Amino acid sequence: MGLSNENLIGLILALASSGFIGSSFIIKKQGLKRAAAVSGVRAGVGGYYYLLEPLWWVGMVTMIVGEVANFVAYAFAPAVLVTPLGALSIIVSATLAHFILKEKLHQLGILGCVMCIAGSVIIVIHAPREQPIKSVLEIWDMATQPAFLAYVGSVIVLVFILVFHFAPRCGHTNVLVYAAICSLMGSLSVMSVKAVGTSLKLTFEGENQLTYPETWFFMLVVAICVIMQMNYLNKALDTFNTAVVSPIYYVMFTTLTILASVIMFKDWDGQSGGTIVSEICGFIVVLSGTILLHVTKDYERSPSFRGTAPLSPSLSVRLYNGNEDFSVKHDEDNGSPSETESMCSRRQELY
Amino acid sequence: MGLSNENLIGLILALASSGFIGSSFIIKKQGLKRAAAVSGVRAGVGGYYYLLEPLWWVGMVTMIVGEVANFVAYAFAPAVLVTPLGALSIIVSATLAHFILKEKLHQLGILGCVMCIAGSVIIVIHAPREQPIKSVLEIWDMATQPAFLAYVGSVIVLVFILVFHFAPRCGHTNVLVYAAICSLMGSLSVMSVKAVGTSLKLTFEGENQLTYPETWFFMLVVAICVIMQMNYLNKALDTFNTAVVSPIYYVMFTTLTILASVIMFKDWDGQSGGTIVSEICGFIVVLSGTILLHVTKDYERSPSFRGTAPLSPSLSVRLYNGNEDFSVKHDEDNGSPSETESMCSRRQELY
Repeated sequence: MGLSNENLIGLILALASSGFIGSSFIIKKQGLKRAAAVSGVRAGVGGYYYLLEPLWWVGMVTMIVGEVANFVAYAFAPAVLVTPLGALSIIVSATLAHFILKEKLHQLGILGCVMCIAGSVIIVIHAPREQPIKSVLEIWDMATQPAFLAYVGSVIVLVFILVFHFAPRCGHTNVLVYAAICSLMGSLSVMSVKAVGTSLKLTFEGENQLTYPETWFFMLVVAICVIMQMNYLNKALDTFNTAVVSPIYYVMFTTLTILASVIMFKDWDGQSGGTIVSEICGFIVVLSGTILLHVTKDYERSPSFRGTAPLSPSLSVRLYNGNEDFSVKHDEDNGSPSETESMCSRRQELY
Repeated sequence: MGLSNENLIGLILALASSGFIGSSFIIKKQGLKRAAAVSGVRAGVGGYYYLLEPLWWVGMVTMIVGEVANFVAYAFAPAVLVTPLGALSIIVSATLAHFILKEKLHQLGILGCVMCIAGSVIIVIHAPREQPIKSVLEIWDMATQPAFLAYVGSVIVLVFILVFHFAPRCGHTNVLVYAAICSLMGSLSVMSVKAVGTSLKLTFEGENQLTYPETWFFMLVVAICVIMQMNYLNKALDTFNTAVVSPIYYVMFTTLTILASVIMFKDWDGQSGGTIVSEICGFIVVLSGTILLHVTKDYERSPSFRGTAPLSPSLSVRLYNGNEDFSVKHDEDNGSPSETESMCSRRQELY
């Protein structure tokens, strides 16, 4: 127990990141609303007036600050700690949406929030202390150990099979295909992001790491993985409802990232069985809370409570893409997702 | 970490108890079904044929075995460990109902099960070791320490206020009144049950405790508390839907029991802050899982999924009274709860 200083900095950064990212969606949405009120044209039906709305840009900047904080957090704390805490941004935006935007949070959604918090606390309490890293070469050694190479090899083989065999056949019918490609690549991008982040941290501390080709190699890996991940996440979001994609993607991505981190950084070496089991349970609890929040986002009050039967099911689709909380109403005659939706969907919770 | 032998026995007994109690409802229900098939009269409409059905009696015996195991568990392990594990019986009956009775478990119900298990694991890992007790006089000392006497005093005052002031005024409109009376008394009954259980355990081990008046005093307290608890739980169940009463009662009862145990047995002395926080989080997770299971028990598949609008809401009331899983269908013209329901409701999860 007892967090090390490095872990504590990482924890604070991860929490701040969730706060920024979570609130950025509320700010952006308020910007969109205000732009729609001024122009009379909703972004969803083709307006770009929101680009003239300062509030929207404030939201954008808030989000970027959050992403940077998240990136830096990986340089200080293990991925096992930082990744699951990403779920807290959902709570922040759900809570703010409830109080500021007056969007009703389903009672089970509140339960989901409580679970995410309880699970996060358990994870934080049991997070492993990381060995201080002195050079990017140390990370390179970890990345080239046989166990991690085996993991990378399996990921590449699986991604190839998924991209060339399954994606053309059932990519459009089975949500798991694209989600699996993104998650597999995502676990590699987080590992390389961590390597790059640590290198930059060391460089800023005076130990220049940019002279090592390994640093540049990790940057290349980040670029390749992130591009691939975005590409297939976009495909997934174009094909399936965000409410379906997001929880599946979150679960697979977080699980694989933790697996990769445990193999590469040996996070669990020297931890007692009880601590590891507690961490896994905390992780399961956060996942369950996230799923609950996502699922109940689409629940209207049950028709029997409202006393009316919904003959035409309300197509209120809430874009809750990992960190997002854009509520977009489809017009009944508008089969394809609106433009805001597509646009918002592009913002992916990559790390 | 690492369970002591005593804790391990208590844990196994608590798990066995949940297994027995959980499966007893399925056995009893199968007995009821078979009796209805043979006689053509449902228990819900006044039949007592189930008393001739051996399967129903098997279920009854299974339940009693479970209750005894639960009682004995308190003699071995702290209430902080035993009480929350009671939630596992709900999982057992929900799972068995799914596979044996082919009752559909809502997807969120599965999530609730997962959470109950994860939370229970966390509680077990962080459960405090209990100091071995050598005599009922030791328990007497703990029960008469100022802090615990203050707790007992507050409970008695609160119960008096609730019974004489609030129960006549809003007992029939506010579910919290009866639930609070039951839970407050329940926390005292668990403490005295633990005292009696430990005394009997010591007596069986050769250290006769029945010569002490303290043992008999604790037995008297058990009797008074349990009678009062049953009385008000019956009132609560007669007045409100079981699906409403059960989760509220479970949450209040478990919380107060843990509070009482922490004060009386000083369960948390010598435990690190992280361990205590983990226990509390595990407990919150189990509670959330229980609530989720209870709430989703009544969910039908959403009408928009089924494609039909439920013009007359199905009044499928599942009696899920803590440990129970009797599914009783109200006839549309039958406003009052059926007899099986009333009968089943009498079986209370007292400990």
